[in-house]
Amino acid sequence: MDKLYIIKIGGNIIDDEEKLSSFLKVFAAVEGKKILVHGGGKLATKLAEQMNVPQQMVEGRRITDAETLKIVTMVYAGYINKNIVAQLQANDCNALGLSGADGNVIQAHKRVHAIIDYGFAGDVDFINSSLLQTLLQQNISLVVAPITHDKQGQLLNTNADTIAQEIAKELSQQFDVNLIYSFEKAGVLLDSYDDSSVINKINSASYKELKEKNLVFAGMIPKLDNAFAALNSGVKKVIIGKAENLHQLLTGISGTTIVNE
Amino acid sequence: MDKLYIIKIGGNIIDDEEKLSSFLKVFAAVEGKKILVHGGGKLATKLAEQMNVPQQMVEGRRITDAETLKIVTMVYAGYINKNIVAQLQANDCNALGLSGADGNVIQAHKRVHAIIDYGFAGDVDFINSSLLQTLLQQNISLVVAPITHDKQGQLLNTNADTIAQEIAKELSQQFDVNLIYSFEKAGVLLDSYDDSSVINKINSASYKELKEKNLVFAGMIPKLDNAFAALNSGVKKVIIGKAENLHQLLTGISGTTIVNE
Repeated sequence: MDKLYIIKIGGNIIDDEEKLSSFLKVFAAVEGKKILVHGGGKLATKLAEQMNVPQQMVEGRRITDAETLKIVTMVYAGYINKNIVAQLQANDCNALGLSGADGNVIQAHKRVHAIIDYGFAGDVDFINSSLLQTLLQQNISLVVAPITHDKQGQLLNTNADTIAQEIAKELSQQFDVNLIYSFEKAGVLLDSYDDSSVINKINSASYKELKEKNLVFAGMIPKLDNAFAALNSGVKKVIIGKAENLHQLLTGISGTTIVNE
Repeated sequence: MDKLYIIKIGGNIIDDEEKLSSFLKVFAAVEGKKILVHGGGKLATKLAEQMNVPQQMVEGRRITDAETLKIVTMVYAGYINKNIVAQLQANDCNALGLSGADGNVIQAHKRVHAIIDYGFAGDVDFINSSLLQTLLQQNISLVVAPITHDKQGQLLNTNADTIAQEIAKELSQQFDVNLIYSFEKAGVLLDSYDDSSVINKINSASYKELKEKNLVFAGMIPKLDNAFAALNSGVKKVIIGKAENLHQLLTGISGTTIVNE
């Protein structure tokens, strides 16, 4: 099976033009098949301020009302996605940008919640892997924006971590999938303030131990649970670490590698 | 050769939610291979006002400064493109949206002009037809936004009429291309205020006569010159008419059909 890298980059790197540009240079140089899933960054918040659209947050999540959906569609699927694609093209990486509506690659439904109305937030129903495979086989690198649709004409704002994971699970039948979550920390840390305390490798046994001894930072637990869920669904390897070290993450020198053994 | 419809819709229909929605229903139902090229509409101007970005027009053309490029990228490649794709998906038409940067499908260069600096306006250099063909062969309908790139990382604002024409010319080697320009008028009119004065068919001989007798509205001449240029490059048929009558345009009942005979 061909190797496939699915790399998620978070908002902090998107907001930093210089860091994004060097990240994209490294991404472009990665050999083989690859998908980049990007989050949103602060641009959407800035634009909402300029347009006088108040932003409502509940438990750290943005409530996506109709005006906010318009903004995130413009910023995520328009500005950020097309600028990343253009930069990759400049680095001789033949990239193509996608929202979930394009080719119906990610179908979702409007989130249903007993108490909170998240607005136009989407939970993923399924990934249409055949088009993704066709494009990857043409050696096209895919750049996925965190906007999905419900196949009824409604666009939906969707978590980029979840999109990366769902694509990774779905494509693990056809590829050896390495799923990389790149963010501002060096990896899974024993001390969340000390980048040198990164745990290089975690498997299910050591994860159990780390949790029992309360050695994992609470905020990392959902990320790690998701990583093991992905591994249980056929993903080969999950790597968590700093976006600036992408090359070292892929070679296992930097970051935390999570395997299911 | 397979038939391919390349249909350009202008701003006035994009600004009208109801008209756009019925247009997309008809487009979705068109059998066979098809590409929709869309313009911008007034949304970009509105957003620029909301963001306090002054818009400079020279000879009816928008000057695309850096802030305006950001706005048109967000509105054209983001909001408009993804909403059209989502609506087509709802009508069971498997659509995929593209800017010129995606898959390097439309490469352009920043316009060079002796006197006027148009800013980030792009003139098309070439169309990468192989990816377009691959996608069309998968029965995917393409939705093209009027944003291109220069392969050096720069996005460029590009005329949608030109994009439609360049794609039509390039794909005429592989398909029987029908190029449709749909706009607010019923077609090429003898009296520009009277929709019933539409000329049903124009060929090169009758066009010469119409021009000699000054019967063609001046504003239509560049459009017609472009139509004949497309026909001379292998496009089978050019149709000009009202977007609301798309079905009748395609069957030749409505609008002006231009052929090279």
